[in-house]
Amino acid sequence: MGIFLALVHHPVLNRHGEVSSTAVTNVDLHDLGRAGRTYGVNRFFVVTPIDLQRELVGRVIRHWADGPGSKSPSRQQAFDRIEVAASIDQAVERVSEITGEKPLIAVTGASLVDDTTPFSEVTAMIRNSGSPILLLFGTGWGLAPEVIERANIRLPAISGPEGPLGYNHLSVRAAAVIVLDRLLGE
Amino acid sequence: MGIFLALVHHPVLNRHGEVSSTAVTNVDLHDLGRAGRTYGVNRFFVVTPIDLQRELVGRVIRHWADGPGSKSPSRQQAFDRIEVAASIDQAVERVSEITGEKPLIAVTGASLVDDTTPFSEVTAMIRNSGSPILLLFGTGWGLAPEVIERANIRLPAISGPEGPLGYNHLSVRAAAVIVLDRLLGE
Repeated sequence: MGIFLALVHHPVLNRHGEVSSTAVTNVDLHDLGRAGRTYGVNRFFVVTPIDLQRELVGRVIRHWADGPGSKSPSRQQAFDRIEVAASIDQAVERVSEITGEKPLIAVTGASLVDDTTPFSEVTAMIRNSGSPILLLFGTGWGLAPEVIERANIRLPAISGPEGPLGYNHLSVRAAAVIVLDRLLGE
Repeated sequence: MGIFLALVHHPVLNRHGEVSSTAVTNVDLHDLGRAGRTYGVNRFFVVTPIDLQRELVGRVIRHWADGPGSKSPSRQQAFDRIEVAASIDQAVERVSEITGEKPLIAVTGASLVDDTTPFSEVTAMIRNSGSPILLLFGTGWGLAPEVIERANIRLPAISGPEGPLGYNHLSVRAAAVIVLDRLLGE
């Protein structure tokens, strides 16, 4: 059992709908690290195939988890659950290593309207099932279709009073914390 | 009727528990502007008594709402609902001007555990009551006690499986979007 989170920087779409990579944003590490810790996420993977980006993120993680920044317990506890991964596959492998089981992959995205599983059902799966779940969040203009297609669970797009076809331009940070709250909040 | 949001940079607590001011963070404008627009917030006030900060924020708002940035509809629609205010009182006054009615003030904070009103009750108030509601979010180490005391509604601290006395160090951005989703999400 366990919930895992991955923030994906490749393969994601760019503004032209092409498969692309994005750069890691520092505030994502802090906001999602802290939110992950709040909601009991087992591990938060920062997924990027770019070596230099993984090196940089690794240095930021070490600063807060073990280095001078670890004097702040709230940051230390947030960052000691963050790991870098070169690909979604590598994150899946790490979950298998940690839990001894292959995770179910759940995807999220502003355009997911059809063939989705309601949040309440996924919450029930989390509570009852033995399988770990890996939640994928796409940066840029969202996860590439190839990622959506291989997922076991598609979560519905987050929407307000206008519904999923209205304004749907939350930051990935915002969408991710809302998904965590809907699945794991009291 | 209407929901209003204010991100308060004064009076808030600093790390030593003293009443203080914080600087405005650019990513807060983008994340909360977009979340406010998603959830149908009428207006999002950025509250700071510092003239230069209000000037700077005003320039950022104009860039996206009316200037070169307005070519992006998702940013334009997010920023044209953002206003600066010099104080909470000034934000309250603006709500009264816009709606013709004094708003109920709702406060939020990681330490609010006792004497709180459940989210479901506040949602019902929003749906049934004629009064506008102004949601206040504190930056830094949270809203000053004087602000908490004068509020009409105290929302419970956001918490995960550990409960409100466990790890509770969400960013104000994360806490605010979760509150919007709990009150106004489908």
